[in-house]
Order: sequence, then structure tokens, then C-alpha cells
Amino acid sequence: MTTVDDLNVPAVTEVSGPSRLAEPDEGITTEELQLAARNHGIPLEALRYDVTPAGLHYLLIHYDIPDLDAQTHTLTIDGAVERSLTVSLAELRERPRVTRRVTLECAGNGRALLHPRAVSQPWLVEAVGNAEWTGTPLAPLLREAGIAPEAVDVVFTGADHGVERGVEQDFQRALPVADALREEVLLAYEMNGAPLLPQHGAPLRLIVPGWYGMAHVKWLRSISVLTETFQGYQNASAYRLRQNADDPGVPVTRIEPRALVRPPGFPDFMSRTRVVRPGPCTVDGRAWSGHAPIVAVEVTTDGGATWAPATLDEPTGGDFAWRRWHYEWTAQPGRHVLGARATDASGRTQPVEQPWNRGGFANNLVQRVEVAVIPE
Amino acid sequence: MTTVDDLNVPAVTEVSGPSRLAEPDEGITTEELQLAARNHGIPLEALRYDVTPAGLHYLLIHYDIPDLDAQTHTLTIDGAVERSLTVSLAELRERPRVTRRVTLECAGNGRALLHPRAVSQPWLVEAVGNAEWTGTPLAPLLREAGIAPEAVDVVFTGADHGVERGVEQDFQRALPVADALREEVLLAYEMNGAPLLPQHGAPLRLIVPGWYGMAHVKWLRSISVLTETFQGYQNASAYRLRQNADDPGVPVTRIEPRALVRPPGFPDFMSRTRVVRPGPCTVDGRAWSGHAPIVAVEVTTDGGATWAPATLDEPTGGDFAWRRWHYEWTAQPGRHVLGARATDASGRTQPVEQPWNRGGFANNLVQRVEVAVIPE
Repeated sequence: MTTVDDLNVPAVTEVSGPSRLAEPDEGITTEELQLAARNHGIPLEALRYDVTPAGLHYLLIHYDIPDLDAQTHTLTIDGAVERSLTVSLAELRERPRVTRRVTLECAGNGRALLHPRAVSQPWLVEAVGNAEWTGTPLAPLLREAGIAPEAVDVVFTGADHGVERGVEQDFQRALPVADALREEVLLAYEMNGAPLLPQHGAPLRLIVPGWYGMAHVKWLRSISVLTETFQGYQNASAYRLRQNADDPGVPVTRIEPRALVRPPGFPDFMSRTRVVRPGPCTVDGRAWSGHAPIVAVEVTTDGGATWAPATLDEPTGGDFAWRRWHYEWTAQPGRHVLGARATDASGRTQPVEQPWNRGGFANNLVQRVEVAVIPE
Repeated sequence: MTTVDDLNVPAVTEVSGPSRLAEPDEGITTEELQLAARNHGIPLEALRYDVTPAGLHYLLIHYDIPDLDAQTHTLTIDGAVERSLTVSLAELRERPRVTRRVTLECAGNGRALLHPRAVSQPWLVEAVGNAEWTGTPLAPLLREAGIAPEAVDVVFTGADHGVERGVEQDFQRALPVADALREEVLLAYEMNGAPLLPQHGAPLRLIVPGWYGMAHVKWLRSISVLTETFQGYQNASAYRLRQNADDPGVPVTRIEPRALVRPPGFPDFMSRTRVVRPGPCTVDGRAWSGHAPIVAVEVTTDGGATWAPATLDEPTGGDFAWRRWHYEWTAQPGRHVLGARATDASGRTQPVEQPWNRGGFANNLVQRVEVAVIPE
């Protein structure tokens, strides 16, 4: 190492830019595009599938997909427990096996539509998917380890490693003990009946039904029980609802209700404007909430001026899977803007004007689908 | 229909904007982002896999993924042939079965890095994948149909339907007869040993080893033999190398040579700058060309100032699959820019300064991987 080199050695803090909001008319940056080119949403026509096929489910990967070996991978449980455990994937597969259909949504879904927008992964509305996750419930394993009475948080650590806002880290996110002990929480090793794909957390990930994606830690390698609140980056710095950079904010947790329209007709390549033929047209889509079951979906065909009730199909996947809805529209020639809004049993409804937060999290503003009804 | 509606009826030509170049400092537009959010590239760390797993292979879908039934899907062969044929998927599966490892790359790969850039799907460098495609060779089927001696082009039509620059169309692209009769061309029904996924053309697609992605027509439903040059949109208007809007240009055909570096170390979330520890570091990646086998890869660690030869691994997949290369680097603390350039047996080498064309096609400018070498 020469002194010249040493003088030029960057610090880890220098590889990250500061968090920032885009200028009012600032287009999407090359950094945002780099994220958009590697992560992806569900192509909206794939809302036709009740279970999202492999490769169409949304993906948000903070660092790199790690290269793990299912044959040798182990999960460690330690911290404030009576006995630390290390279990192999084979041992987890021998435990009780449960399959749950669960809708996952990125906490940043809708971010790129906010004014001003947070400069980060630039989602429009498509960061969602509904898959069948198979694994073993977490709670019995935690009970076998023996959680200390004074335990507060349970920290889940992935094998993915990187830097974020100058902080070098393995991806880690904690759940409060009561949430970690919910019977629905799974240690999942299969998706849609096949071993997890590398990009979905192979060979093992957490599934926390009802919560935004950041809680479903992928490439899970350890679980630590803490007797104080976890102060790691993804809990204490990122994934918080803040009004400004100085606001301590509150953690992002459960998924706000949302309905998406499956765009009818066929698209223009570039604008994605839809062309629909005049006459009867079934408008359908999916609706979900992490707080409570969906109880109503309303549809607008005039950009939000008026709303009409949609029909909810029978649930197909339990309380944490999306639900199909449909609405019979008579398409009149001209231009229209379609949208849908969901209401759940907790009384939450999608807003037409979006409350803003600095990270662009938990944003469930109503979608706008531009349609041109044109005779053949 | 009221007269008011009729007055507002748009034409199909009005759902498309004109093709255009971005202004010098224009950020990525919302329309480009819509495409980037639904299509996606290979996450560059997935260059580690010789065969790209499902869901990590690049995707470029012009319109919507159509909803086809493999049980009833048929392929029609007609036009300038002695006898028209209609074959089911089951019949195609009974024909000789071939598996080929083939690298596919989008013709627009690299487009968003050009100055000025064409406003379209905004690829950086990641629109590539290398999969195992299984199907039956096309040529024997064309011979059974009996191609007329005066045949010129063979048109492949997909089931995907949309509008592009005001032209409503099924996706169609033609090959010259001699190219359609190449023994390597496949009617593929499996990818990586499983039935095609919806987004990759289920239940049937064309594979044209060595050609850019636009030739590998997905959701293939018909093949027509023409006795004149095909004048359809994707041959005559799109996918041509033009210097300006009035230039008739020449069609995009085979893949230009390219090498990609698998970024070493670990990334910053937002900037994707890589952090590498000082010392020995294997830099590796993949290289491919649609013209001829790769014969050399050179590596730069100083942003193109100097180049050193990489070692080519043994080929693993025939003439049309990418080839791994590697280079032993001693990483010195400081900032570095890595890149690689490929040369094929036809003498084509990647340019360091990119020749520009209006569509941003066949662009194989050397990649830039920003690395910060930082002691632990």
C-alpha cells in the first residue's frame, strides 16, 4: 500500500449519498433506474392469476442476492433464550408443515407518484404479489428455545450484506415479541410448491402475514431475542413514517388497504394507455389489507368523481391473501380514468388525496388507469 | 352513444406519442419508468449462474402477457407453402426434441446510457440471460409444409396485441428464409427443464440463437411464408439501425459482442457502488456474441486507461451461450472503475466510444463498475 493510495482511501460512509427528496421537476435519476432495472413489480395483467407465478411476483432486494447452499445452511436462535438452537434446513423440513397464501407488498409501493418523491426504489403501484408459502411455524421453535420473560424484540438477520446511508450491515429487521409469536408467522422454504428461488430468499425466509415486505426477511440465517428495543438500521433509521428528516417517526408495520385494477383491453407500448372496445367490459382486480379482511371495493370510471360498488368474489386464500373483485362497466367511446379503492373490516379506506411521508412508505393512493374507448 | 361521446372519441393513433430523443438533461420519464417497473434485467450478481434461474432472466414484453391455454393452443403454418399446417402443442412435443443453451439479449440493452437517449425501455446493461431452451427444430416443419421457391421472408406472429406509435398490431417479426431454415432455430416449449413461464412465451415461442430478443417471438401462434419482404411494424419501422428519423436504416439482427463484469464485493443500496476489501480479488463475468464464438476478453480496472487479458473458462453451452471469464486482480485501497470488453472470432470487439443510433439498438459500450476498495 503506498501513501498515495492511503490518501485516497474512501470511507464506507462515502459510498452512500444522503437520503433526499427529488426536486419538483426532477426526472427519475440513473440511481433510481439502476434499482428499477434489477428489482421489478408485477406486470399488472398478471393480476389475473390468483397465485402469482414465479418471476412475476414483485422483488425488492437491498443488496445482492447471496449465494447460499441449502445442504449446509443453518438457522441459529440465540440471545435472551433459555437454550440457543441451531437447526438445519432438513430439520426444519421435518417439523410441522404449513402452507399459507399471503399477499406481500413493498412498503415503498407508490413512492414514485408522491410529490415530492423520496429518491429510492421508484415504485409506481406494482410492488405486490400473492404466493403460496410453505414452511414451519416460528412460534413453537421460539418456545422450544425458551424466550426470556423480559424479552422485547426478536431480530431476524439475513445473509445479504451491503451499505445503506453509510451503514455497513447484514439486512436485519426486528419484530416485537408478540408479533414474532403470532401463529401465522412462518419459516418458509417453498414458494408455490417449489423450493424458494434465489431471489425470494433461498433456502429460507421469514413470512409475516399482513406486514409490508421489509419484515419478511430473506436468506434468513439467525434469530436473536433482545431485552431492549432493536436499534438496527432497518428499524431505527429506514422503514419509519416521518414527516421530515428530524422526525423520529414510527415504524412501518402492517399493509394499508389497497385495490388494483387489472387494466382492461390492450396497451400502447410506451404510454401503457389502454384501448378498450365500446360495450360491456368486466373491470376486475385484486384488493388486500394487512389490518383486516377486505369488506368493500368501489370503482371509479371517471377519475374519482363518482364511485360504484364492485362485487367481491369469495375469498380464496384466508385473511392475508388478496381477494378478487369485479365490476360490470359499459364502456362508452372516449377517454376515461379507472380506479378502485378498498375498505377493510377495521374501517380503513384508501385515500383519494395521499397523506405524504418522507420515505414514501405505506402509500395507498388510488391507482389511475388511462383508458381510450375506441370502436374497432 | 351520445354525440358528445362521439366528438371525444380518440383515434388509435392518439394513444401513442411520437418517437423521440430525450432532451440533454432530461431525467428518466414516468413512461420509461412504467416500462422499467414491469420489465426487468438480470441482477448482475446472477451472472454467477451459468444457466439463469427462472425469474432472473431479462424480460421485455411489448404489450401484455397473453393468457393462453397449452391444451388448446395451435401453431399454423401458411402463406407461400405447398400445404398449410396446423399443429397442436402435443404434436410438437412428439417431434424430435432438442435442448440448446442460448444467450438472449434485448436489442435495446444499454439504451439509457446513450447521449442523447431514445425514450423507450430504459435499459442500462442488464437486459440479458442464458437459459436452456427445449423444443423441436423449425426447419423440418417448414420443409414438410413445402416452402415456395420464390419465398423471401417468414413471418412469426405472437398472441400479444397492442399499439405502438399509433399502429395496432399483433407482435410480428420476420426472418429471411435462409435464417428461418437454420438448423439451430427452435420452436421452444420448455425453459430450464420446465414448461415455459407465461412471461417467457408460454406455451410456445421461437428461439433464434445468435439474434437479439425481438426475433425470438413469444406466444407464437402462426408462421406465414411471404414472397416479398415483410413490411410489418417490427421489421420496417422499429428495430432498425437509423441515424435520424428519415433514415430508412437497416434491420437489427445478430447480437454484437459484449462482456459483463459480475460486480465484486458488496453494494451500496442506492448508488450500487461496490465495496471490496484490499487484496486478491477474482473479477469474473460472462461474454457472448451472436456473430461468432468469443475468443478474448480484456479487463480494465482503471476505467479503460489500460487493459489486461482475462482467462476464458471452457465453453459450457455451444456457440450461442455465454462464456465465463475471470481475471485475478489485486485490489488496492482507493476508487476504481472496472470493465471488460469481448472480442469474437469474426474480429468484432466492443467499442470504448459508442457509435450512436436513434433507437439505441445493438449498443455494446463497455460497462462501468464503480468500486471503492476499503480496508475492513
